[in-house]
Amino acid sequence: MQKAPQKLPLDGIVVIDLSHVYNGPYATFLMAMAGAEVIKVEPLGGEHLRSRGDMGGADLPFAMLNSNKKPVTLNLKEAAGRALLTELVQRADILVENFAPGVMDRLGVGAAQLLEINPRLIYGSSSGYGKSGPYRDYPAMDLVMQAMCGVIDSTGYPDQPPVKAGAAICDFMAGIHLYGAIMTALYERTQTGQGRVVEVSMQDATFASLASNLGMLHARGDAAPARTGNRHGGLGISPYNVYPTVDGYVVLNAPGDRHFYAILDVIGCPELKNDPRFANRSARVAHTADVDNLIESWTRKMKKDEVAERMLNGKVPCAPVRKLQEVLQDKNMHARGSLQTVDHPLLGSVVLPGSPLVFEGVERRPIEPSLPLGASNDQIFGEWLGHSAEELAQLRAQGVI
Amino acid sequence: MQKAPQKLPLDGIVVIDLSHVYNGPYATFLMAMAGAEVIKVEPLGGEHLRSRGDMGGADLPFAMLNSNKKPVTLNLKEAAGRALLTELVQRADILVENFAPGVMDRLGVGAAQLLEINPRLIYGSSSGYGKSGPYRDYPAMDLVMQAMCGVIDSTGYPDQPPVKAGAAICDFMAGIHLYGAIMTALYERTQTGQGRVVEVSMQDATFASLASNLGMLHARGDAAPARTGNRHGGLGISPYNVYPTVDGYVVLNAPGDRHFYAILDVIGCPELKNDPRFANRSARVAHTADVDNLIESWTRKMKKDEVAERMLNGKVPCAPVRKLQEVLQDKNMHARGSLQTVDHPLLGSVVLPGSPLVFEGVERRPIEPSLPLGASNDQIFGEWLGHSAEELAQLRAQGVI
Repeated sequence: MQKAPQKLPLDGIVVIDLSHVYNGPYATFLMAMAGAEVIKVEPLGGEHLRSRGDMGGADLPFAMLNSNKKPVTLNLKEAAGRALLTELVQRADILVENFAPGVMDRLGVGAAQLLEINPRLIYGSSSGYGKSGPYRDYPAMDLVMQAMCGVIDSTGYPDQPPVKAGAAICDFMAGIHLYGAIMTALYERTQTGQGRVVEVSMQDATFASLASNLGMLHARGDAAPARTGNRHGGLGISPYNVYPTVDGYVVLNAPGDRHFYAILDVIGCPELKNDPRFANRSARVAHTADVDNLIESWTRKMKKDEVAERMLNGKVPCAPVRKLQEVLQDKNMHARGSLQTVDHPLLGSVVLPGSPLVFEGVERRPIEPSLPLGASNDQIFGEWLGHSAEELAQLRAQGVI
Repeated sequence: MQKAPQKLPLDGIVVIDLSHVYNGPYATFLMAMAGAEVIKVEPLGGEHLRSRGDMGGADLPFAMLNSNKKPVTLNLKEAAGRALLTELVQRADILVENFAPGVMDRLGVGAAQLLEINPRLIYGSSSGYGKSGPYRDYPAMDLVMQAMCGVIDSTGYPDQPPVKAGAAICDFMAGIHLYGAIMTALYERTQTGQGRVVEVSMQDATFASLASNLGMLHARGDAAPARTGNRHGGLGISPYNVYPTVDGYVVLNAPGDRHFYAILDVIGCPELKNDPRFANRSARVAHTADVDNLIESWTRKMKKDEVAERMLNGKVPCAPVRKLQEVLQDKNMHARGSLQTVDHPLLGSVVLPGSPLVFEGVERRPIEPSLPLGASNDQIFGEWLGHSAEELAQLRAQGVI
């Protein structure tokens, strides 16, 4: 007998998503891909990311983070808009927002009010510095948070100014932590019957990722360099660096002696296993320049993919430094369904991510491309909440939806 | 009438934690701080992070990630060790591991076997490239993953070699995604009564954080620079940079005209609001060098905290580029309880993180410092599983625990 197709884990869960740009929308994207119904509530002009196209290309980020969501418009500055939000919240399990702290309260739809309307609601919010604490009202964006959290000072070469991490790590760290906090509260609700307010700050969410750097600071005090370029954050492993090749760069990392001996075999210098400069990790760390020169003299003559292939065959932790064009074509992620080529109605053929959360034994939810502003107004406000076509027309005329 | 003190959300949940170093241990740290009982199962020699002290300082990272866990030793290469694991699994809700794919199966304690023993178990694993896909057996470490995922190529100055992000973002992104996946399955279990296998890869978990860079690539194609130093990833905002001060650096970001006008007021040049080079965002982007010179000529004369204070008073997104020493003393995180000064029995007085997941209305779980290897053997194997002192002595003699 054939098994019935499994449902996705969040099947039946309804999410009201008031969030914008990266951090909240990433959390609700993961909910959508895990099976939840996500209603994306935007102001009449659309959330910031829709209108940011002129800031260097926000079309693809919007598409990446808003698959499988149902976008509706709602003017929360109008009483009728807040009334509609209340109707949504009555039928929802989860509400997500990443406004600055206090914004929802000032609109009259703060957590306390909404939990009174629906005591089973999980109200999740994220912000730069959190809802408590003296920095709560500081403006927060990824660059600013990278500076405050120590990411910038930890990145770059010791003899050069610090540089930001290219990835928007504070934004996305907050988004995925918010997802985790909300899921925890959703589980808790099954035990207590009660909803809860959860919150995450970008600052808190980023801290742990600096564990290696904090570890070196603890061990060496002020003698610890703030940043180590491409060398190990604790300056405790060699080789560990980015090396030039004919057509770009590779990284190599030999945490153990066996990795280094494998490198010597790959580059055809097995006799150097007896060289006292390279005998063990501490010796190699003390002779890092020699180690790096040895490896570089070999990598310089080859293409990066060739270096990586030979090293990986020798079980050496190695990778080409890939350009994003190459990342988008990654064979592994496409094979796993983590990247999919999607025919997007606005963008044409694009590569979009599925969810990194893999639930074995159930098919991944197929990517449904992001929709235009307000595309689901009729479905959500009409069919789902039961407002008539006349009512919707009036709400439109009044600038409510 | 006084309310009874609320329980933490994961109260009553038992986690068997076989994970090591950063990625799995971060997930189980969050579980512990959310109220779960986390049994940290280590090989007799301790997990890698315990023995990595000579690699540049792993003592603090170990303490950061292993608060509130109960460490036991267990030799899974012995049949008696696997039998004890089976006993633990029978009483557990969650098992977490981040071995290379296939290791648990080869030991005879793979997900399929363990779910047969306990069909309600959530079995969560994370790895570099995931359990499926052609790269599954490649060695994976944070540096290697940063190269593969495009983080390295996206970081640094356009006219210089790429540089890794100082934070171990691939490791921690995987860890927190794993937490989210497991919580999702834990909720699902309350609906289905069934456990589940979930998995996360570092590669999948990192992808979305490059949204801005991918957006610029989509918008500009091969004309997009791989990296932009400290400038906006999409080169669509100005000012947006790191600026030198007397005693370090600050970051400034003016996404809107109002932010830029506020900067002009702060630096005492309100007349420049009428300068056509600075009239709007596109004009400023076209005259970025002028914008940066203007700001730098002011910041160079001041201390970083003074610049930040004045700019923040003007509601400009700004921050000092803080050293980790400063981050550890962050007033906001200490006020929120996200950082706490703890008297650690091995390390003395250290600053350790609480959980970034804030559940409002319930007290944070106090940090209980990390314990020595096997410190909870008697409690877990003796009191909890019910083995006698003689049995434990025998298991010790046989090298099982």
